[in-house]
Amino acid sequence: MDTTRDGRFEQALAELKLSFEEDIRPGANYEVAVEHGGQIYVSGMIPRVRGTIAVTGRVGDTATLEDARQAARISILRSLAILRSRLGTLDRVARVMRMTVYVQSAADFTQQSEVADAASDLLYTILAPGGGHTRTSVGVYQLPKNAAVELDLVAAVLA
Amino acid sequence: MDTTRDGRFEQALAELKLSFEEDIRPGANYEVAVEHGGQIYVSGMIPRVRGTIAVTGRVGDTATLEDARQAARISILRSLAILRSRLGTLDRVARVMRMTVYVQSAADFTQQSEVADAASDLLYTILAPGGGHTRTSVGVYQLPKNAAVELDLVAAVLA
Amino acid sequence: MDTTRDGRFEQALAELKLSFEEDIRPGANYEVAVEHGGQIYVSGMIPRVRGTIAVTGRVGDTATLEDARQAARISILRSLAILRSRLGTLDRVARVMRMTVYVQSAADFTQQSEVADAASDLLYTILAPGGGHTRTSVGVYQLPKNAAVELDLVAAVLA
Repeated sequence: MDTTRDGRFEQALAELKLSFEEDIRPGANYEVAVEHGGQIYVSGMIPRVRGTIAVTGRVGDTATLEDARQAARISILRSLAILRSRLGTLDRVARVMRMTVYVQSAADFTQQSEVADAASDLLYTILAPGGGHTRTSVGVYQLPKNAAVELDLVAAVLA
Repeated sequence: MDTTRDGRFEQALAELKLSFEEDIRPGANYEVAVEHGGQIYVSGMIPRVRGTIAVTGRVGDTATLEDARQAARISILRSLAILRSRLGTLDRVARVMRMTVYVQSAADFTQQSEVADAASDLLYTILAPGGGHTRTSVGVYQLPKNAAVELDLVAAVLA
Repeated sequence: MDTTRDGRFEQALAELKLSFEEDIRPGANYEVAVEHGGQIYVSGMIPRVRGTIAVTGRVGDTATLEDARQAARISILRSLAILRSRLGTLDRVARVMRMTVYVQSAADFTQQSEVADAASDLLYTILAPGGGHTRTSVGVYQLPKNAAVELDLVAAVLA
């Protein structure tokens, strides 16, 4: 395994055969990230890969737990791609303070934590040491573009 | 168009024929805003106008996309009214770091981003330059008082 | 009533006949709290008491408003237990900046604010003076482990 955060990020992309557009832009009138006062907020990310939503549907109904875990992986890697682009390197991430994971859920699907675990595991693997973060995962009724998962985060940034 | 943020805020209120109560108070035992350490958090706002919820219902079912966009406009203007009241002027807003938009959604309503756009557009118009913000929009199952939309925000504040 | 925050916290636990495990740990690969730069984030808490989810179900259907208020009380006390453990004493909480309350709701259940009030009231009682906080409460479709309520918070910390 690569010894740098940026290297491990690229390894994770390669393992999942993912590549995002060069310059990730918001769909409308907002920013994908805002850095101010030692913190950076990243907008809610869905599992979009070069213009396509890779995982759609209601988890526990038209999408499986494993589909949703893959959606969480893509969404967190997209968030890390934005952090890296804005900060120059993932080494400038001091701590991910919070990740909030929204799962488009069937009425009786209660494994939102297991979905979020897939994103948490990547944060630990890529940002180690220092991948620890707080987390909230909830089951929502719908998400933009029928995405199976959406997640956002706020991180503390090294000067 | 007015050249000041406070002036453009008042213009937006006038265009929507809106006026909020003089002193916006919370419904119960919490604060509408808390400022500390260079940040101000604003509580979740629903499209309440002088005691009445202006837009209720499930978007994509008993409320339309345009109803929801109007709800988002009222909710963000209410948030800005609180910021202005607490900070004295909107000029003290350094950056809106995050706006989270909750849309009471029908099972197949997937245009939560288009709802949030209406609030984002007002942030850009009123706070320019400096209206950029990150955003998360999700579709929830219900909201307090059957509101069609609820949104909250956190902003960085100039000293 | 006890004159210290820590004392009032213990009184509240005793009144609700609650005791949490000695060392509250996350269920998976994340942290229950992260402190950095004068802020502490606490992960989303469900009404777990020593390994059991005390209040499950859909509020307005298989769980009542009062059930949900009890779930909110347990969840906020669990959050305060984590704050106390990490900070040494609740006296180091400068302000709770935001509490977000997610209520597993029936389609027509619109009293999410009344659920959140139960947690807000405890914050005021235990942290007084200084229990004021902003709040967002929404109705979601499901929650981890079928919990009736989940809540998270971010607080400013005294040095």
